[in-house]
Amino acid sequence: MKALTELFDRIVQRVNINLRELAFDVRPFVKDLVPFNQLVKFYAFYGITPHHPLDFQFRHSNLAGSYFLGKCRTTNSILYKSDIRGDELKKKGDIFQYPGFEIPVSKDEGIRIEDSFLIKTLVHNYSHDPETLEKFFITNTVSTHYANIHGSPTDGSYLGPFSTVDLTTMNDCVIGAFSYVQASEISHLNIEPGTVWVRSPNNFNFLYRYPLDKLSHYIHFAAGAPPQGLLMDFVEDRKEAFQRVFEKVNIEQVSVPKSASLDRFAVLKPKTHISDNVLVAQRAFLQNAWMGKGANAQENCYIINARLEGFNVTAHGAKIIEADLGQNVFVGFNSFLRGRPDCRLTIGKDSIIMPHTIIDIKEPLKIPPDHLVWGLVTCAADLETHSISLKALSKINDAFSLGSMFFEGSGNSFVTAFRDRIHHILEANGALYDGMKNKGHAQKNQNISFNTIQPYPEGELKGVYPTIIIRP
Amino acid sequence: MKALTELFDRIVQRVNINLRELAFDVRPFVKDLVPFNQLVKFYAFYGITPHHPLDFQFRHSNLAGSYFLGKCRTTNSILYKSDIRGDELKKKGDIFQYPGFEIPVSKDEGIRIEDSFLIKTLVHNYSHDPETLEKFFITNTVSTHYANIHGSPTDGSYLGPFSTVDLTTMNDCVIGAFSYVQASEISHLNIEPGTVWVRSPNNFNFLYRYPLDKLSHYIHFAAGAPPQGLLMDFVEDRKEAFQRVFEKVNIEQVSVPKSASLDRFAVLKPKTHISDNVLVAQRAFLQNAWMGKGANAQENCYIINARLEGFNVTAHGAKIIEADLGQNVFVGFNSFLRGRPDCRLTIGKDSIIMPHTIIDIKEPLKIPPDHLVWGLVTCAADLETHSISLKALSKINDAFSLGSMFFEGSGNSFVTAFRDRIHHILEANGALYDGMKNKGHAQKNQNISFNTIQPYPEGELKGVYPTIIIRP
Repeated sequence: MKALTELFDRIVQRVNINLRELAFDVRPFVKDLVPFNQLVKFYAFYGITPHHPLDFQFRHSNLAGSYFLGKCRTTNSILYKSDIRGDELKKKGDIFQYPGFEIPVSKDEGIRIEDSFLIKTLVHNYSHDPETLEKFFITNTVSTHYANIHGSPTDGSYLGPFSTVDLTTMNDCVIGAFSYVQASEISHLNIEPGTVWVRSPNNFNFLYRYPLDKLSHYIHFAAGAPPQGLLMDFVEDRKEAFQRVFEKVNIEQVSVPKSASLDRFAVLKPKTHISDNVLVAQRAFLQNAWMGKGANAQENCYIINARLEGFNVTAHGAKIIEADLGQNVFVGFNSFLRGRPDCRLTIGKDSIIMPHTIIDIKEPLKIPPDHLVWGLVTCAADLETHSISLKALSKINDAFSLGSMFFEGSGNSFVTAFRDRIHHILEANGALYDGMKNKGHAQKNQNISFNTIQPYPEGELKGVYPTIIIRP
Repeated sequence: MKALTELFDRIVQRVNINLRELAFDVRPFVKDLVPFNQLVKFYAFYGITPHHPLDFQFRHSNLAGSYFLGKCRTTNSILYKSDIRGDELKKKGDIFQYPGFEIPVSKDEGIRIEDSFLIKTLVHNYSHDPETLEKFFITNTVSTHYANIHGSPTDGSYLGPFSTVDLTTMNDCVIGAFSYVQASEISHLNIEPGTVWVRSPNNFNFLYRYPLDKLSHYIHFAAGAPPQGLLMDFVEDRKEAFQRVFEKVNIEQVSVPKSASLDRFAVLKPKTHISDNVLVAQRAFLQNAWMGKGANAQENCYIINARLEGFNVTAHGAKIIEADLGQNVFVGFNSFLRGRPDCRLTIGKDSIIMPHTIIDIKEPLKIPPDHLVWGLVTCAADLETHSISLKALSKINDAFSLGSMFFEGSGNSFVTAFRDRIHHILEANGALYDGMKNKGHAQKNQNISFNTIQPYPEGELKGVYPTIIIRP
């Protein structure tokens, strides 16, 4: 495994040279984090459909357990059980709207991953950087368990476990565990763990920080040991259910409505109900889940003993347990919403649960309709400092703070941007399909050919995949 | 499936234009022979090891259920459940010996399949044509169930079911069902079904013809229906056992000696014993089979309730049922040797069962050691006209016939050529491995990474595989 060792060392060095100003050494965090024999053990797989322009190129990389859909080139990288989903990439001829600009896309966009090490990371969406519309790049980057790189070209950076970079171009940054950053463009920043930051330059700014002592119960990552805490345990406890899904070439599929899509790499446990236009993505876990019309369950999400009335977005990595969600409730990335059998969590319709929100209750809790919720909520009293009605928020035009949350700018812009985005997500996922118009992933991703690839099984190149090129 | 239909039509037309002189129309034979929905149903797979130079290129082809190991490029072709095993291809720098010539191989040899339709066909070995050492081509060719194209570059030809072309370059020929041809170079010939022909120009000539009325009980192929007869039924009856093998990504392997190799796409039924240096290839079927040291079970072979003492070659497609074989017994391509539980077949050591031999007995039968056996044998009396001791054969230097068999030339050359070849096969398969030297397939093919590929699942290109290029 000489080549694999050299590859690993070279990636670490490249990240460290980028992060030298922040004096951040990525090596102690990732050394032995994924044993090399794990990298040899799992096949990778890519999907083919007539709806996605075909262009896969894998060179001198390890791709263990990773999934690819849509255009992607990977060079000198290690992708461990990561999902690289390029099914929303821009196409040649599209017009990219940016305030003051209408930029034509000159060729089909592709994802380019180079000199990077991604662990159980989700890469999705498309480059929101107007400077690099055709290339969604991830270079010189290390990313750890359940991080999301969402529409965010990234260079020279490190992402902690359960962190998310969303619609943000990032250069030479450190993103702490469970931090969420949506900030357009950032450079040379060290973002502390548990930061939730949404910024639209000249428009609004939302900032929340988790109390670190409380966050560490849920997720904690120190050099020399794997990430720890309740979020890791929760996922590990359900790992076995995925084994059967991955060890068979063709899964006998549960039947779902014609307009819905259930990925063959998802786990569906008993008593789950799938309505029209529902999308269940790979590595989603549903158990006794009632999915109303147009609800979606994105990658790495868990919906257990829960009822979603319809048009619900359950974003990548979100967990919903013992809960009842009204129509149009949005649950952001990596949120952890846990009711209990005897004290359920109820969320009123049209409410927005911010990305990286933790609601973990021991008494019943009702969140009213049309509210925004963020941060750590363990009881009804917490809601006072961790939620606001969207109506009230829309009226804010200045600075304002509530508990550990700070907001400045146009509340109306913030709410409108969120609403528009939720509408776009529902549309892209096919929730609004009427049998004719508005086809989305739920309709287009029904029929994917899956193909598996494996590395050299022995010798110096053991663990390295050969060069693989797939074209139309 | 427009593209697939066009591809099929174009192949048929190309074969027919080549066979116009023989006035052979391949269309009625292959039309509907493999329903198009079958072509969409099965994944193809290729193997990667550090021992095989890597160069796969698949373009505008359907590869349903086919297997690839070793360098191979496929263009505008349909390969249905075929095995393309290029693990004996020549390498750059090899010297090819040909009487009067020593030809250096200028680059790694590759298999090139173009404009061809192969059904359950085995392609193996390397080009024995000194004119095309670097390219083992199969072009403008249709080949049907369980045909073998073995070391035989082939253009513009048709192969019937269970036919074999061995070490023979072939241009514009028709090979009838169950015919075996090893004749160096042939052109514009129509070989009748049930012909067994071994010719070494200026050296010897062996010719046998099956009585067609008796052969049709075993195999019969007429236009408009699939191949029929006992050989087809035998294989169909055991098809289900392979299902489990193909539907799982990783098979829990039965443990075999360190020096032996059991392919994960083989079927191993209970009470089978595997000794050192044994090779069991993909799509081999073993049931209550005792495999002595260095015995091999090649692709599509079946060994059932049988004991093979060691260093036995069971060539591609051979079937051995209720039989006891001494050491060094060779059973050639597609032979069908069937004893019964109460009347076993015994074959003495060092005997050679010619390719395409049928021994089908209802009383016990003993074949003595050091004998050559050919054609159709149903009782001891048949042996008189269907076998000869190798010693007697070695003494022949002229023309001689026995039953429907005709021989002319040097019997000694014939026996020596056969013995050398058997030795080479054992060597190549690793039967002679001593723990240090003489590694062969049994030792080198132990650790193969398998990778699956699938076609476009819908649309005009449904059933066509995208362009796939795999390099080191």
